[in-house]
Amino acid sequence: MKKILIALETGEQEQAAFRRAVGGEAELIFTTTGAATQEQVREASFILGNVPPRFIAGSEKLEVLQLFSAGADAYLPKGILGEKTQLCNATGAYSRAVGEHAFAMTMMLIKKLHLYRSAQMRNSWVDYGTIRSLGESTVLVVGLGDIGLGYARLVKAMGARVIGVKRRPGPCPEGVDELVPTEDLDRVLEEADVIMSVLPSTEETRYMYTAERFHRMKNSAVFINVGRGDAVSEEVLLSALQHGEIAAAALDVFETEPLPADSPLWQEERLVITPHVAGSFHHPSIYDGIMEIGLENLRRYLRGEPLRNVVDPKTGYCR
Amino acid sequence: MKKILIALETGEQEQAAFRRAVGGEAELIFTTTGAATQEQVREASFILGNVPPRFIAGSEKLEVLQLFSAGADAYLPKGILGEKTQLCNATGAYSRAVGEHAFAMTMMLIKKLHLYRSAQMRNSWVDYGTIRSLGESTVLVVGLGDIGLGYARLVKAMGARVIGVKRRPGPCPEGVDELVPTEDLDRVLEEADVIMSVLPSTEETRYMYTAERFHRMKNSAVFINVGRGDAVSEEVLLSALQHGEIAAAALDVFETEPLPADSPLWQEERLVITPHVAGSFHHPSIYDGIMEIGLENLRRYLRGEPLRNVVDPKTGYCR
Repeated sequence: MKKILIALETGEQEQAAFRRAVGGEAELIFTTTGAATQEQVREASFILGNVPPRFIAGSEKLEVLQLFSAGADAYLPKGILGEKTQLCNATGAYSRAVGEHAFAMTMMLIKKLHLYRSAQMRNSWVDYGTIRSLGESTVLVVGLGDIGLGYARLVKAMGARVIGVKRRPGPCPEGVDELVPTEDLDRVLEEADVIMSVLPSTEETRYMYTAERFHRMKNSAVFINVGRGDAVSEEVLLSALQHGEIAAAALDVFETEPLPADSPLWQEERLVITPHVAGSFHHPSIYDGIMEIGLENLRRYLRGEPLRNVVDPKTGYCR
Repeated sequence: MKKILIALETGEQEQAAFRRAVGGEAELIFTTTGAATQEQVREASFILGNVPPRFIAGSEKLEVLQLFSAGADAYLPKGILGEKTQLCNATGAYSRAVGEHAFAMTMMLIKKLHLYRSAQMRNSWVDYGTIRSLGESTVLVVGLGDIGLGYARLVKAMGARVIGVKRRPGPCPEGVDELVPTEDLDRVLEEADVIMSVLPSTEETRYMYTAERFHRMKNSAVFINVGRGDAVSEEVLLSALQHGEIAAAALDVFETEPLPADSPLWQEERLVITPHVAGSFHHPSIYDGIMEIGLENLRRYLRGEPLRNVVDPKTGYCR
């Protein structure tokens, strides 16, 4: 009998839903991501949860690894997933929480609330001058997947002009005024007042925000990254802020996480840091979304139907 | 010939617009708020600008004092304005800038970005747990004038349920789900996840947020004040934060401004402080709005027509 490993905190309600999905067709094992053992992983045909990649390497039974994350980069290197394993992510579960976090960061930066917060901590009543409104801003959303689109709708509701940047642009979706391919990035960077980046970690996206690209941006622009930390080198970003190439930035993701206590990023006043909390179960919509995707893919798997959210191991994107 | 005193920074374009409005019917004097002399004030029939109240007291010629502020409280005490002087404010010019500032503060608080900013300044990678979305929040807007309504539309666009509180409720405006009179404040305070207050300073509004009212609020609620500082005593607010009656607060206005450097408010981590910058010419829409109101009231005054934005000296509100 096939073994289904649910390596994710579940309550009675969720466990009952999994039991209904499985019927008597397979054996269900409930554990958590931290408690899952290598043996449980090796025996499972279907796993829901981001179990340690080293447990998976050489696993012969695994047919589906359903992650609870949107990023799949930890499972992409060769030698982890076998030929017959399909990798699925939880794209869709994060659009609301991460989109809103990036949106809150955007509002904070354009209203200079980060500077006022720093001044407050020095007991200092100081006026930082004029601010910007989204209603007169051009917002660039780099990576127009589910999260990018959720964010685009929020800034659009505030009156922004929205340009989406996508690897393979299709029809222009609602909430986006212009959709351009990645090759046009340099051109549209020059127009943007806000650059919000939400890209997976792939060979193409690594260090794509070069010093030259920050130089292209408006000096008044703000830069936000909620995708993966390696889209921008921390030295390049710090230098761009210190040389006034851009006005401010906010990061939720870093090359090394946790960000080391001695990183020079912490004390850069023009930079806002949140510790990778935009997603990661900080809003109930995330857990609910993961459950919905996990249950549906488990049902599809048992019925032999094509799965949702299958990641192409070559690109790190959904197919 | 009547003298019109424009006590506000103007450029050539604005001065030309005033000249067209006046024709040859009156003498125009351009100065700034800080440079206006008592003699200029005493000679003027119409003033645009927040000239010092003590210059106005006893002024016999003044028929219209057109403020560039929304608040008129500095000019309401007896002995400042004569019987024949009409007081007009600039309600309408601030709705966008102040509404957006209050909205940015709201997003900051509900996403806990104030806590992350403080942690950043300690080089500390710390997770503050779950956050709230406006989509599942009830937002109370206390004072549903022009600014309150602008703010209401923004939170509504994010999916919030909006309750407006107004001295004299009329038909429920767009962007507001429920409109209640001030007498119902206690009831609706208990339902709110966000309380945003934008009230003028009057006898009724002074210290209206009592300890008892903070006690009524949800422990998870956030409180924002962008109206006048005396709506809440600083000790009462500090105590409510320290005793967990509410989760967080943000103030742009204070009983004493600038907030004294030794105020205990500065170092309260759960409180966000901005130095009365939501309005005060920090966004071009404010200046443009003031010019529009000022020009129109000047034209109406010269034609003997009823004015816009006339403040009732008894209530501090527009009639």
